[in-house]
Amino acid sequence: MDISIVVIGDELLIGQVTDTNSGFIARHISPFGWQVRDVQVVADNAEAITSAIDRAFSRSRVVVTTGGLGPTKDDITKEALRTYFGGEMQFVGSVLDNVKEIFRKRGLQLNDLTASQAMVPTSARVIQNRVGTAPIMWFEDPVRERVLVAMPGVPFETREMFTTEVFPQLAEKFPTDGVVEHRTIMVEGISESDLATLLGEWEASLPDYIHLAYLPKPGLIRLRLDGHYPYTGFLDREINRYAVELKSLCGEHFLYDGDREPAEILLEKLAEKNLTVATAESCTGGNIAHLITSVPGSSASMLGGVVSYSNDVKRNLLGVSAKSLDEHGAVSIPVVEQMALGACNATGADIAMATSGIAGPGGGSEEKPVGTVCIAVATRNGITSHTFRFPGSRDRVIDRASVTAIIMAIRATESLSPAGQ
Amino acid sequence: MDISIVVIGDELLIGQVTDTNSGFIARHISPFGWQVRDVQVVADNAEAITSAIDRAFSRSRVVVTTGGLGPTKDDITKEALRTYFGGEMQFVGSVLDNVKEIFRKRGLQLNDLTASQAMVPTSARVIQNRVGTAPIMWFEDPVRERVLVAMPGVPFETREMFTTEVFPQLAEKFPTDGVVEHRTIMVEGISESDLATLLGEWEASLPDYIHLAYLPKPGLIRLRLDGHYPYTGFLDREINRYAVELKSLCGEHFLYDGDREPAEILLEKLAEKNLTVATAESCTGGNIAHLITSVPGSSASMLGGVVSYSNDVKRNLLGVSAKSLDEHGAVSIPVVEQMALGACNATGADIAMATSGIAGPGGGSEEKPVGTVCIAVATRNGITSHTFRFPGSRDRVIDRASVTAIIMAIRATESLSPAGQ
Repeated sequence: MDISIVVIGDELLIGQVTDTNSGFIARHISPFGWQVRDVQVVADNAEAITSAIDRAFSRSRVVVTTGGLGPTKDDITKEALRTYFGGEMQFVGSVLDNVKEIFRKRGLQLNDLTASQAMVPTSARVIQNRVGTAPIMWFEDPVRERVLVAMPGVPFETREMFTTEVFPQLAEKFPTDGVVEHRTIMVEGISESDLATLLGEWEASLPDYIHLAYLPKPGLIRLRLDGHYPYTGFLDREINRYAVELKSLCGEHFLYDGDREPAEILLEKLAEKNLTVATAESCTGGNIAHLITSVPGSSASMLGGVVSYSNDVKRNLLGVSAKSLDEHGAVSIPVVEQMALGACNATGADIAMATSGIAGPGGGSEEKPVGTVCIAVATRNGITSHTFRFPGSRDRVIDRASVTAIIMAIRATESLSPAGQ
Repeated sequence: MDISIVVIGDELLIGQVTDTNSGFIARHISPFGWQVRDVQVVADNAEAITSAIDRAFSRSRVVVTTGGLGPTKDDITKEALRTYFGGEMQFVGSVLDNVKEIFRKRGLQLNDLTASQAMVPTSARVIQNRVGTAPIMWFEDPVRERVLVAMPGVPFETREMFTTEVFPQLAEKFPTDGVVEHRTIMVEGISESDLATLLGEWEASLPDYIHLAYLPKPGLIRLRLDGHYPYTGFLDREINRYAVELKSLCGEHFLYDGDREPAEILLEKLAEKNLTVATAESCTGGNIAHLITSVPGSSASMLGGVVSYSNDVKRNLLGVSAKSLDEHGAVSIPVVEQMALGACNATGADIAMATSGIAGPGGGSEEKPVGTVCIAVATRNGITSHTFRFPGSRDRVIDRASVTAIIMAIRATESLSPAGQ
């Protein structure tokens, strides 16, 4: 099944906001054998919206619109949809109740403008928006068997409601033929082109009902096997068999099963062994701690950490020696190793990651150019450390360094015995 | 003048890559009175490309395509354009010379696939790509006075070549009427609908050459005035006058001028007064430090911080009293105030932000439900603290709490005298 997406909003066309909703939708539907046919980004303008919907329906039976549903007068999408699908605007009490509930939770006063969200075209069925005030509207053309779902543009609302309500209802209305299955493994420490060379012959020998996709992320490559077959039992056995072969071919580069964040895997492995973790961050500036603490339940293993941007903080909170800082500089293996040990000492953690580097754009030198990052992981078994050279912008260097530190911590955790043993 | 953009590439439709080129183009052309009319994202497929170009020309006289010009077999854009505009493929020596020069600079070997970049439709005029191997192609229909420019999709190449070659040539061919100007201000502490009520009457009284847009972000609302007028001097004066009125109407909710990140503004205000900053984060888990250290040059003011997820770390690194933790719990005003003071003491910073809360999904109670976050900002003038109730998922609570802490630090910095005074 195809979905055509219409993204509505002047703010997108002036480059103030970047559309991430359509990418999210694409990634979410792909495992179910659905795909995004095309995306149109249009202004808050009735003619532009209507014309984009016409075009979208000429290509797909399912159209999802995002955006243009806020309470202010910028947002004319609802009226354009009423004109397109017919009917009158009517007051829907359950939408007002939902708006009131959302406002109550947020401790805000209801006003007339927000209450106007409760006006909905009679041609639409409302899907209650649990996480925002704009109702989600399901328009259906029963004769031509096609559906348009109008969703709000706030990424958080789109993500929550598309996965829990909109897509399940679409999948029920348009069941796909056969079954689709996926297996994802994560590999690291190899470039995409080297990996393609390593796997080329095996990939060419795959049956036509199984396909291999390379999906790189900063510091990692996801390898996804997509299977599509009439029956589930056979496909399940086959895809498992090929996943085992794939892992074996990747050898030491294989990191873990499933498309999950490295921080989740680290926390899972720590919890299994009843171990605790801490961070000591210079160039990553708190991002490693942020990635770890973004995972629900992380407080079970994460004790905390230090962001030691200044050398004083490195000395006073982490016990890095002034001599090492003078002799080797802050971006050096001796300093980053002392930072990792210092984080274990300061927090009592079983394992600690430390980073020190030059994220740029300034601060680089001939000897230590921008992108140079020293990373250390300390455990009771000792310290592992390495100096990396990451390409790209400041954000990219911070991302890569953070993910790499977490991968090193996963490897170190695998080799540790459980706490108390 | 309008530009319609066609973004070409399967990788965009599966959500592997996010299109940032069209936003860049939009931001670049806006000061010249040009705007992006719409954006279409389509697959690497000749029919989809051709149909998108037809639609783009039905809306704008200028079409820019990005992507689909790499040397691999996925990329069929060049052939689709040749079919669309006519002519034959011919070898262009200057393109091969350019490819050779780019490869020489990158220390790479030329292969046949890359040399094929030198084949260009006779209907196109080549704009030499100084920063990549794919030639930029200018197709012109002199009868209907319309132009299509095909550009590579690599953001770095698009940005460099659009600003230095493509847009100057488009602006020369299509001189524009009038000028466009924008002013953005950031406001906080008010909902979008309350703000719309507050500004409604004023907004309705705006002249037709000035428009107000509401652009909410987590914890903030951007208000943008867009002006369009034949002459720059008049518009400049007018838009400044309305911006002053708007700020005055927003009153205490006005935060700062310009569409910039709160962390940037905080760092700017700190640098002006030669002040330093630190963080003590529990529920935000390092995200505040990450937002601050994501700004280039932040090390001038940011000393560091502590992520105090466990109570032991709150006590040992930040000096929070065991008594306060016992009596009030970790999520309490006394604890978060001690954390902020502790961060100042531990790092020597002039100002520190501290957070302690329940980001969820677990850990909530009747008295302190998920979303409850205590935030404190300590300075030499004293401590400001407040308990908030933020809606939404764990990520959203962390985002909102982080932005709110930074806003409180901006307010606190505004009231501080420069260091040493």
